[in-house]
Amino acid sequence: MRKEHDFIGELEVPDEVYYGVQTMRAIDNFHITGQTIDPDFVQSIARVKKAAAMANMATGRLDKKIGEALIEAADEIIDGKLLDQFPVDPIQGGAGTSINMNMNEVLCNRALEIIGQPKGRYDIISPNNHANMAQSTNDSFPTSIKVCLSHKAKKLTAALDRLATELEKKSEEYKDVLKMGRTHLQDAVPITLGQEMGMYASAVRRGIRRIDHAIDEIHVMNMGGTAVGTGLNAEPAYIKKVAETLSEVTGEKYVTADNMIDATNNTDGFSDVSSAMKTTALVLIKMANDFRLMASGPRCGLNELKLPKRQPGSSIMPGKVNPVIAEVLDQACYQVIGNDLAVSMGVENGQFELNVMEPVMAFNMFNSMKYMTNAVNTFVDKLLIGLEPNREQCQKWLDNSVGVVTALLPHIGYENSAMLAKEAYNTGKPIRQVIMEKGLLSREKMEHILSPRQMTTPGIAE
Amino acid sequence: MRKEHDFIGELEVPDEVYYGVQTMRAIDNFHITGQTIDPDFVQSIARVKKAAAMANMATGRLDKKIGEALIEAADEIIDGKLLDQFPVDPIQGGAGTSINMNMNEVLCNRALEIIGQPKGRYDIISPNNHANMAQSTNDSFPTSIKVCLSHKAKKLTAALDRLATELEKKSEEYKDVLKMGRTHLQDAVPITLGQEMGMYASAVRRGIRRIDHAIDEIHVMNMGGTAVGTGLNAEPAYIKKVAETLSEVTGEKYVTADNMIDATNNTDGFSDVSSAMKTTALVLIKMANDFRLMASGPRCGLNELKLPKRQPGSSIMPGKVNPVIAEVLDQACYQVIGNDLAVSMGVENGQFELNVMEPVMAFNMFNSMKYMTNAVNTFVDKLLIGLEPNREQCQKWLDNSVGVVTALLPHIGYENSAMLAKEAYNTGKPIRQVIMEKGLLSREKMEHILSPRQMTTPGIAE
Amino acid sequence: MRKEHDFIGELEVPDEVYYGVQTMRAIDNFHITGQTIDPDFVQSIARVKKAAAMANMATGRLDKKIGEALIEAADEIIDGKLLDQFPVDPIQGGAGTSINMNMNEVLCNRALEIIGQPKGRYDIISPNNHANMAQSTNDSFPTSIKVCLSHKAKKLTAALDRLATELEKKSEEYKDVLKMGRTHLQDAVPITLGQEMGMYASAVRRGIRRIDHAIDEIHVMNMGGTAVGTGLNAEPAYIKKVAETLSEVTGEKYVTADNMIDATNNTDGFSDVSSAMKTTALVLIKMANDFRLMASGPRCGLNELKLPKRQPGSSIMPGKVNPVIAEVLDQACYQVIGNDLAVSMGVENGQFELNVMEPVMAFNMFNSMKYMTNAVNTFVDKLLIGLEPNREQCQKWLDNSVGVVTALLPHIGYENSAMLAKEAYNTGKPIRQVIMEKGLLSREKMEHILSPRQMTTPGIAE
Amino acid sequence: MRKEHDFIGELEVPDEVYYGVQTMRAIDNFHITGQTIDPDFVQSIARVKKAAAMANMATGRLDKKIGEALIEAADEIIDGKLLDQFPVDPIQGGAGTSINMNMNEVLCNRALEIIGQPKGRYDIISPNNHANMAQSTNDSFPTSIKVCLSHKAKKLTAALDRLATELEKKSEEYKDVLKMGRTHLQDAVPITLGQEMGMYASAVRRGIRRIDHAIDEIHVMNMGGTAVGTGLNAEPAYIKKVAETLSEVTGEKYVTADNMIDATNNTDGFSDVSSAMKTTALVLIKMANDFRLMASGPRCGLNELKLPKRQPGSSIMPGKVNPVIAEVLDQACYQVIGNDLAVSMGVENGQFELNVMEPVMAFNMFNSMKYMTNAVNTFVDKLLIGLEPNREQCQKWLDNSVGVVTALLPHIGYENSAMLAKEAYNTGKPIRQVIMEKGLLSREKMEHILSPRQMTTPGIAE
Repeated sequence: MRKEHDFIGELEVPDEVYYGVQTMRAIDNFHITGQTIDPDFVQSIARVKKAAAMANMATGRLDKKIGEALIEAADEIIDGKLLDQFPVDPIQGGAGTSINMNMNEVLCNRALEIIGQPKGRYDIISPNNHANMAQSTNDSFPTSIKVCLSHKAKKLTAALDRLATELEKKSEEYKDVLKMGRTHLQDAVPITLGQEMGMYASAVRRGIRRIDHAIDEIHVMNMGGTAVGTGLNAEPAYIKKVAETLSEVTGEKYVTADNMIDATNNTDGFSDVSSAMKTTALVLIKMANDFRLMASGPRCGLNELKLPKRQPGSSIMPGKVNPVIAEVLDQACYQVIGNDLAVSMGVENGQFELNVMEPVMAFNMFNSMKYMTNAVNTFVDKLLIGLEPNREQCQKWLDNSVGVVTALLPHIGYENSAMLAKEAYNTGKPIRQVIMEKGLLSREKMEHILSPRQMTTPGIAE
Repeated sequence: MRKEHDFIGELEVPDEVYYGVQTMRAIDNFHITGQTIDPDFVQSIARVKKAAAMANMATGRLDKKIGEALIEAADEIIDGKLLDQFPVDPIQGGAGTSINMNMNEVLCNRALEIIGQPKGRYDIISPNNHANMAQSTNDSFPTSIKVCLSHKAKKLTAALDRLATELEKKSEEYKDVLKMGRTHLQDAVPITLGQEMGMYASAVRRGIRRIDHAIDEIHVMNMGGTAVGTGLNAEPAYIKKVAETLSEVTGEKYVTADNMIDATNNTDGFSDVSSAMKTTALVLIKMANDFRLMASGPRCGLNELKLPKRQPGSSIMPGKVNPVIAEVLDQACYQVIGNDLAVSMGVENGQFELNVMEPVMAFNMFNSMKYMTNAVNTFVDKLLIGLEPNREQCQKWLDNSVGVVTALLPHIGYENSAMLAKEAYNTGKPIRQVIMEKGLLSREKMEHILSPRQMTTPGIAE
Repeated sequence: MRKEHDFIGELEVPDEVYYGVQTMRAIDNFHITGQTIDPDFVQSIARVKKAAAMANMATGRLDKKIGEALIEAADEIIDGKLLDQFPVDPIQGGAGTSINMNMNEVLCNRALEIIGQPKGRYDIISPNNHANMAQSTNDSFPTSIKVCLSHKAKKLTAALDRLATELEKKSEEYKDVLKMGRTHLQDAVPITLGQEMGMYASAVRRGIRRIDHAIDEIHVMNMGGTAVGTGLNAEPAYIKKVAETLSEVTGEKYVTADNMIDATNNTDGFSDVSSAMKTTALVLIKMANDFRLMASGPRCGLNELKLPKRQPGSSIMPGKVNPVIAEVLDQACYQVIGNDLAVSMGVENGQFELNVMEPVMAFNMFNSMKYMTNAVNTFVDKLLIGLEPNREQCQKWLDNSVGVVTALLPHIGYENSAMLAKEAYNTGKPIRQVIMEKGLLSREKMEHILSPRQMTTPGIAE
Repeated sequence: MRKEHDFIGELEVPDEVYYGVQTMRAIDNFHITGQTIDPDFVQSIARVKKAAAMANMATGRLDKKIGEALIEAADEIIDGKLLDQFPVDPIQGGAGTSINMNMNEVLCNRALEIIGQPKGRYDIISPNNHANMAQSTNDSFPTSIKVCLSHKAKKLTAALDRLATELEKKSEEYKDVLKMGRTHLQDAVPITLGQEMGMYASAVRRGIRRIDHAIDEIHVMNMGGTAVGTGLNAEPAYIKKVAETLSEVTGEKYVTADNMIDATNNTDGFSDVSSAMKTTALVLIKMANDFRLMASGPRCGLNELKLPKRQPGSSIMPGKVNPVIAEVLDQACYQVIGNDLAVSMGVENGQFELNVMEPVMAFNMFNSMKYMTNAVNTFVDKLLIGLEPNREQCQKWLDNSVGVVTALLPHIGYENSAMLAKEAYNTGKPIRQVIMEKGLLSREKMEHILSPRQMTTPGIAE
């Protein structure tokens, strides 16, 4: 054990760990979820710290030897080392100070080791004076969240792109599978299964754009704003430089906020990211539910889609297979929507120069990104790739339907069409038979109007 | 015009109106919804004011002549008069002070009139000293909300009771309509339509109990707590008396909170009421959605229920009829759930001795009660009463199903049953035929096991 | 009374009204909110109908005389006439068919009148065949919602722009009002009141961009998609034309969706608009709460801001004045957030080719836009314009503070600075005195470092 | 590796694990959260399985030797063994079938081992036929959730009871700490810090009752309802018995639902439990926020409470200490509120005979219970026990205040009192001096009226 102190007092720290006294306090203070910091987030913070060290070296304020050691330490974390050195609970008080100091301490102690000094020699390299130089939790923490969100968003949009691409393939594959379109769950007019798949793809692609847009908007950051956004203790040269180094370290363009005070305390950009996921979740739920409806049956439901069989569906009902993959997508999406409310409540509760609720926002946004990414990939891999349409059933429903009378509207008017529909419903007769019986159209004309192509493409039959 | 003043200054008030200077300020300050106070709420406040006046007369603090005039004025409002004298917007700052003063002013001016004095003679009867005697907005406003909620809840639970009763009638009526039960939208095991109707009724009855319970809990009130719950300016005798008079005026038992400071600033009781509506809304949504699914079709869906035809379903699709009544119930319920979040945010934002967000809570709770009451009554009147089952279709689905193999489980085990199901699905053969072909059971035994009664009542066929 | 019929049957319609049988059914079916359609929405639908008629005339499908009469009728509504002819409840089943048919009937009957025919002569001009030509509720209703949102959003962003502009004025006015910055509600480092006002302005301007972006995205519409987005009964020429005529009628650029099936059933664009309002509401709440905190007191609180006195604050506490305008902004924002959840639930519940929950979405989005616009304008007019800083109090707090030691960090390090702070807190001495006593800096250096300019602008004192 | 099969096909299972083929499928199918089942939940399922085995033995359907082995296996899990054998993701499709089968397989394989047979010999003891005898996921899964919620709720209410008890202690301790009461964050009338602590305690105790009530309501369960609540394959004797054995195993009274079909598919009881936590969270947030306000400063805020110093508050601001424990309670509560929305969405989405979204509900309810329990205990241990009032500051604020004029109301009326307040505010003079100057009361009378006891207890000074 080594002894460390802060202005609260002295504590013993196990000698093998890289974190120090402030992390020890955080471990003691915060037992809420029992979880630890998301590794992606740990690495994102390391990137921000590296960028700050580079900028501080560039302005000459940070000693080269110390700076290089800190950067080496940060690089190790970025490379996946030391990830077990971040034991603090993601839901924590203090607006992320514990996470930030955890990183500052680990970087500092590893840097000390690199330059051949024992851990804890903060007189040589200090968590606050060096690792945190020209920074505050209030700028480096939200910036790290942004870096992490950008990173995770790439995985999410990649998953969504896989989904859209696979749906587009199905759209092409099923372009001739004519089926009954439904509105209000009531028979409407014909559509193709391919058109439906294309429709889902189109909405998913909009989801990608939505998330990309929200992520773009948070590439404005407040590094150099320090404690309250006024930039106290940060030189203008550093502020200019750190946007460059952060862009360099992350491979993405980050710019400094025009108004860093705003950027320090308003967290509406996080609400935008979370809302973008919420809205996309709503689209995915609708799609998953359509799949569940189309796969309903097999004997007593719509039975238009055959989902790959993933597991026995019941502990009691033999032979039953359920749409478990669509169900799990739904549930992951409910979680995303619930998480969005937790984010909203966090965003609501900023006060003056800071929003201290950022940890709970980060926790929820990271979880939402992870869960949604996983659920979307699962949907592609376990359901969509092995999907098969039930062509016979689609055709059977359609042959039996009445809704095609809508296509007669431009030819015989709404009232006559309605009369035909009513007659078909009342008598149970096929609609084509009813049309012929009423003699309002020639058979040839009828067949032309009611041909699949006519009914699923804009235009009125001549 | 007459001139009135408060400590902010002087204002002109149209002579014909009963409200005064503070209401004028409120009209000027708050234009948010463009709506006015719910008449039920106006009358509830009048009841609370009447109870306070009675109690103040009983303790001797309120002059008999003035008290009687105030009570007469309150009674007029309770009887439905003067309801146009409450022009303030329901979403308002000031924690309800504007509503409370609106009532104090109307009571006071009407009382002045009753005793033969001109409006505005507050030196004789004063809104603050007499109508508001021993009260604060902070006790009379939340108490009035409680009185109004109790009143509205009676209408809501009456509507829910009508719904449950009608469902129970259908349950009896449809007790022999055997149909396929579904889980995961997949064919499961048989059930009767009557059992399903009884299930909805059972859940609705639980909703009634839930709402009743939440309403019971808010019969604890803080009249006499005055500004912060300490009872400053209210005598113990008054506090004791006002619980009695309020019970007398409302015909319901109200008791004084043990801890009036708590009762003055914590509004969790409102969250309970709103949550009870939210949860009940979730139950109603599920029921409405089942109806929409069962009514799906008519040719390309489940088509198990025939809903009364309420209106042409489409401006373009002739003959189409949609389940519009179930859809409007869904939407009213979404509104209730959204309103619950607005209530939650209000409840969250109390500070110290008061929660100033009570107006928005009241607005949402009253709207939720009203919308839900209307939607439930609509569902009963426009859908449920004219409902008809499609017996043939229910039977047809069932005859075609495989899920009945579950009933064989205690006789031939899960593996054998699963094998039969698989065979039926793969070959498309009727399940009874497959069972016979495999020779695992005698025909007699099979028919016994698969008889409707056996399959929808607990117990294993001998 | 005149008799009208649809395929459900015949009904009597009062002769003086312009709506017809289907509106009568809707009035009878839907009593939920007791409200009627927002006039802005009525006018937006009229615009869409006018655009459709123009396009149908252009393609030659719509008779010129009928078309011109319909357009004249639509123009009357756009000009504010006939607004009392739309009695249907905004929360309704049928996905807006009742609203759409209400408009079709009014247009049709008014057009009949214009051409000298009696109301109800649908054989001459028909609600379904003419007013609704080449349309379905499923394309004209969501498009009308988009037109209305765009219209209302202009009022909202104008209000937000007024707010931002006024805040920017205050920012300039208060640029020399130095005050204590606070994080975690704890004394942090100095800032100016002008910087804070500029910070609010900056966040509000981002809100404007957020709403504008969401509104831009819904200028993609599905007119011509008809029932399910396949364009059944709509000619390609019409589809192309109607985007032009709608742009002409509204004065805004509308484009046809690449995928009209998607545009017909996915309503995520509405969730985006609603979420944009939600997030902006969160920003406004934070601002309003800061104002409430800064105005707290006047004797026992922060007392940094003097809000205009709008009304007596209490029915019992004489002389009390409350921040009622900030409170009402908060509450309007809670409503917006609750409404967003109702919208989310609507968006969630699309099925197949349509989302039938659009009416409840429209109701909530329109209300949110209206309430937020009103509340923001109220905040500007009733609070911000008359605002005054309490300069003496701001300075007094600052003089007494310790947090300025942060500025010493680059000069004496974190540990020494912390020691000074601790000493000041423990002894109660002014921080400047403690610094001098410890002799770590010359007085001149200290005063330079702690000068207001130094402390509120980036850079380290030389 | 051993080979196992189900009706989907054959899979290899590592020989050392106790779970089998269906768990293997679940591991493969569901990667959403990366977490595994809550150990409390695993043990709760084991309790339910044990109760079912006992009941099946009692009816004679389950062979004694097999039953005893299954019970021994269940007891081992209840005692904390084998908890690493439950690798399935808590967010899963299939309505809990994977969790249920995971347990059935582990019990079965461990029971086989106990009777000296190798794992996988399902012909001897079968997961479906024996471990799951007379059960379905659809009865045993929701019942297990109820058992787990009851278990976790005890920890939560114990934490809340500790909180209330500690607040009550503080209430007694601070009963003489007179301070300014505040409404609207504006000075109102005096109160004692003890009264405030008692107020929090009172609200927390109501939270305990609220949670207890919701938990009581879910002691109604559906064991024996099997697949859809009709009790197919479960004998009446078993149904009667299993309520008894479950009560015996859990030590709590469980009763069988009157309507098991309702109990199988309606999950509103879970919404009630979750809402009870939500509402209690709202109360805790309000309390935590009051603490943060009262601890604000120390030099530039209210500074009425001294919280124990838990950690350095800032990485850049030396000497700063933040109310991190109150902040973490807030954030845990936001999570609970977000989780409640996820639960609501789950409850909303039941269909027909089952709500397949139970896994996401369970996940959120368990997390909420855990987080709230931890956060409340943290608040007690790390903040409340070491709390100290700042008596001097409380008195100082009060001495400076004007709000005490309210107490003069019954003696000199509202108008005179308001005039005094206005004078004091305008001149900045102490209120007592203004009262004396105006000569409306004798000094003796004034001091009597304004004495602390008078102002914080009901009653009007004589």
